[in-house]
Amino acid sequence: MYSAPVDDIAFTLKHVAGLGDALSRGVLGDLSEDLVDAILEEAGRFATGEVAPLAEIGDRQGAKLADGKVTTPDGWADLYRRWAAAGWNSLTAPEEFGGQNLPHMLNVAALEMWNSGSMAFALAPTLTMGAVEAIVAHGSNDLKRSYLPKLVSGEWTGTMNLTEPHAGSDLGVLKTRAERNGDGTYRIFGQKIFITWGEHDAADNIIHLVLARLPDAPAGTRGISLFLVPKFLPDENGAPGSRNDLFCHSLEHKLGIHGSPTCTMIFGDGKFGDEKGALGWLVGEENKGLACMFTMMNNARLAVGMQGVAICEAATQKAIEYARERTQGKAPGWQGSGMSPIIEHPDIVRTLLTMKALTQGSRAISFSCAHAIDMAHATEDARQRAHWQERAALLTPIAKSFSTDAGVDVASMGIQVHGGMGFIEETGAARYLRDARIAPIYEGTNGIQAIDLVLRKLPLSEGAQVRGFIAELREIAARTATSNRDDLGETARYLDASLTDLETATDWLLSRIKAGETEMALAGATPYQRLFGLALTGAYLAKGALVSVDDGRGGHRAALCRFAAENLLAETAALKDRIMSGAASLAAARTVLA
Amino acid sequence: MYSAPVDDIAFTLKHVAGLGDALSRGVLGDLSEDLVDAILEEAGRFATGEVAPLAEIGDRQGAKLADGKVTTPDGWADLYRRWAAAGWNSLTAPEEFGGQNLPHMLNVAALEMWNSGSMAFALAPTLTMGAVEAIVAHGSNDLKRSYLPKLVSGEWTGTMNLTEPHAGSDLGVLKTRAERNGDGTYRIFGQKIFITWGEHDAADNIIHLVLARLPDAPAGTRGISLFLVPKFLPDENGAPGSRNDLFCHSLEHKLGIHGSPTCTMIFGDGKFGDEKGALGWLVGEENKGLACMFTMMNNARLAVGMQGVAICEAATQKAIEYARERTQGKAPGWQGSGMSPIIEHPDIVRTLLTMKALTQGSRAISFSCAHAIDMAHATEDARQRAHWQERAALLTPIAKSFSTDAGVDVASMGIQVHGGMGFIEETGAARYLRDARIAPIYEGTNGIQAIDLVLRKLPLSEGAQVRGFIAELREIAARTATSNRDDLGETARYLDASLTDLETATDWLLSRIKAGETEMALAGATPYQRLFGLALTGAYLAKGALVSVDDGRGGHRAALCRFAAENLLAETAALKDRIMSGAASLAAARTVLA
Repeated sequence: MYSAPVDDIAFTLKHVAGLGDALSRGVLGDLSEDLVDAILEEAGRFATGEVAPLAEIGDRQGAKLADGKVTTPDGWADLYRRWAAAGWNSLTAPEEFGGQNLPHMLNVAALEMWNSGSMAFALAPTLTMGAVEAIVAHGSNDLKRSYLPKLVSGEWTGTMNLTEPHAGSDLGVLKTRAERNGDGTYRIFGQKIFITWGEHDAADNIIHLVLARLPDAPAGTRGISLFLVPKFLPDENGAPGSRNDLFCHSLEHKLGIHGSPTCTMIFGDGKFGDEKGALGWLVGEENKGLACMFTMMNNARLAVGMQGVAICEAATQKAIEYARERTQGKAPGWQGSGMSPIIEHPDIVRTLLTMKALTQGSRAISFSCAHAIDMAHATEDARQRAHWQERAALLTPIAKSFSTDAGVDVASMGIQVHGGMGFIEETGAARYLRDARIAPIYEGTNGIQAIDLVLRKLPLSEGAQVRGFIAELREIAARTATSNRDDLGETARYLDASLTDLETATDWLLSRIKAGETEMALAGATPYQRLFGLALTGAYLAKGALVSVDDGRGGHRAALCRFAAENLLAETAALKDRIMSGAASLAAARTVLA
Repeated sequence: MYSAPVDDIAFTLKHVAGLGDALSRGVLGDLSEDLVDAILEEAGRFATGEVAPLAEIGDRQGAKLADGKVTTPDGWADLYRRWAAAGWNSLTAPEEFGGQNLPHMLNVAALEMWNSGSMAFALAPTLTMGAVEAIVAHGSNDLKRSYLPKLVSGEWTGTMNLTEPHAGSDLGVLKTRAERNGDGTYRIFGQKIFITWGEHDAADNIIHLVLARLPDAPAGTRGISLFLVPKFLPDENGAPGSRNDLFCHSLEHKLGIHGSPTCTMIFGDGKFGDEKGALGWLVGEENKGLACMFTMMNNARLAVGMQGVAICEAATQKAIEYARERTQGKAPGWQGSGMSPIIEHPDIVRTLLTMKALTQGSRAISFSCAHAIDMAHATEDARQRAHWQERAALLTPIAKSFSTDAGVDVASMGIQVHGGMGFIEETGAARYLRDARIAPIYEGTNGIQAIDLVLRKLPLSEGAQVRGFIAELREIAARTATSNRDDLGETARYLDASLTDLETATDWLLSRIKAGETEMALAGATPYQRLFGLALTGAYLAKGALVSVDDGRGGHRAALCRFAAENLLAETAALKDRIMSGAASLAAARTVLA
């Protein structure tokens, strides 16, 4: 059973991702290390003791639709209400709406734990937090007053209604339409698919943020507006009143995250309400909806990255536990009586260490991304703020893609460690793979993340942002080299080589983009994204290993860092090669698919 | 919907894996190319038109147990009977028992197609074929006469009963016991788990091959005997008579292959029969059961490799079809109106080409392994036979592991290409991943295959077998270099480098084994197995690309070969590094897991 790794999380936040430095420099106001520790401890306790025990029943029962009502698995509605009552939904929200105004780093750390407990469960608040952000940033004061307190507390939940059958990665072609009522409100008509927690029984109201097109809107993405469309219209006291004209038409039958209802939502077909059309309020300006949606999508991407980290952690814990208990064969050098635990077999050791290294690497990348977001919020200086905004923008696609790819790979390795038992659903290892598999897809597929990374993020400040970042990583490599630590083995050499690969590939991609050779650049986008993630994994594990903290685990950190450097980092040379030499062959081989 | 790639399969058999050469030299008796083509065509028709259409219902309904009886999904029992009636079960079996005495290559090619149609369905005959082999090789004449005709025809099916809860990879500790009746028969008592098609309604009788221990047997693997234990004891006319004392106690609830009943079998608890104990007959000699079982396990390992190839092929077809139809966004250079099909996006092209290259590589490796088996059977010369036996032994773990790892990876890529639709079960892409995930586990996990490859197969003929094989591959690289074909790009250079990596790693592993440093060798076993598979993929794709066959697809073969060389082969350098440099860090990091 999952047990929240509070110490690892706290160490990574403080000593790798920058929280310790920010705390000691007072950048985050009067937030103390003690409070950070207390929050992490308490989140760990809730995730371990309350969320994780309900994951299996959630997977087995799934969400169910009957007579237009969605029932969540046994115990989930109550679990959600207890979770919200404990204040977990409001960590980062503004104080004026009942939030705790804490750094994103803490929320992201907590998200890891909720998702390790149950990814399907954690999806509900993830969407609500996104809705809060969008309304805080773009909502009118009326909307804020009416909706934020209950969304911040988690009494109500939120959704993102983007996708339509023909409009997924490309939202420019969406057809859901909005009509002006003349009084500042709108009526929404259309169908949305893949709406996470679009309907359920765990909260008293559900606030949908819906992308739709006005009758006179320009074509494409410049003609999309964002609307707030509540399931129940608030009455004069702000309580859920009459039902709005929208409903859940069906639930998807999915590979994983069974406890999370994935809804097809119908707006404005006249099923509810006196007048046809779901009543909606504009968020932000007309035709600027995509920009508003991106406010929540960026943080949502990092939140999905946390799902990857979370699955890595939970699947690794489970595999280690099994490998310690299961005995089979005799490992070389085994001195005990009878069969050895399979954790003694070198191949199992290799697999488990790889799982651990990917977990810690993706965690460090994701926390560093959250740190950049926090710094951008906390910094007064405009130049500094721009710097941190760029850093967050650069790290977001890597955090999302590297962590979610790792989630799938690590979950698959976890099944393998379990042998035949891993294929049996009751064991629970297979659920991690089934749940993990959606994360590289939603909130922008990892292929879309790679396009974003290469075409939008590398050129930030004409390449100065990425080059400055690589220079920082080089400093870690230099400190590793001069540390002369035996227990780090060849870490410095491998890390240095990987950073050179990263630098070479970055320069090559930037020159392709400058030359207008977009297709060449895009052909290498996915391998580049992985190269960046691996190099960051090496650098962040080294950074952690170089920290002297008297917690008795410094030796473990060094040993895992060395393992990662000497076993995972050599791949970056192949990736660099694939980016720079592979594109031409890719173009030549298109005919194979014709 | 899957459509059997008969042309690709025939090309690979004939021009890459050696069937063409064997046919023209008359090594395979009077088998003609026309007959080969006719069999492949007919198998392709059956797999495409009969098996594949029942895959989805099999997955959805699964096998069901009620009142001790297992019901297969709607239509499956009939499908199986029609499949057997068409003679597909008997391709390689000896003529004297009703078989067609055809080469294994043809059966393996057909197995690919059955498994692409439905892996869960194809498992039934896969196990029966294994039972036939074991009885042909080790059964008494009485057993052969009583059982082989009906197992060869497929009227009855066979199983392998090896695993017990505490005895999986390590069979030495199994507890199922056998007692001598004094008349040459035995009574079997015990419980076996994970018994594929252990009970079902598609055949009139089920013949279990059961590993058990005699009362006076030595401990460990030297004390295991193999028994034939029929569900129904044949009456005087050889028809299924009285029920034997065995039954299916429960079915596993699995991640995939739902249509295949995975049974817990109870032998000898007195539920059936007059006397307690399941009546069994010895196969081979007492206490030599493991050797007998290995007869069927080697070919079963190749058959599982074919499951990997089959999933690769089917998942790739499905992804290409979707990517051609789904439109989204505008790919760079897209000139058409509206959105481009996603197959125009460079990242999708890369993914699909990678899927295709892994499919063709694993197919070529597996067919080459089957060719070696055929040559070992067909050759009179003892030295030649020993050579081909060694070649088959060397290739078996690679065919099993590389193909099944590819199956998981390719199925996962297939889901990714489908985007959100890939996560919806009705789409069918997720089933491939769920089915594929068992293949790296059963018939010896891929970790066990790697141990087998490194500790048992590399040292064959003191390393001369593997070195001779690499020399053959070097010839392909040399021919590629001298061909001076522009359309092969940098194939020769990449292939040459990969073969050097393979050679270097092989020498290093052999020297570690010689020095008794088993743990060092085993730490690199899995990366070595993948290195070997990648190098073979490069070599076999090049071999195929160099063949001039006027089928209009030579250009495609060259383009795919170049893509694979320039995009996949660079990984071998990292793998070599991991093998030779990674072991020390792995040993040092063991404490991390303590």
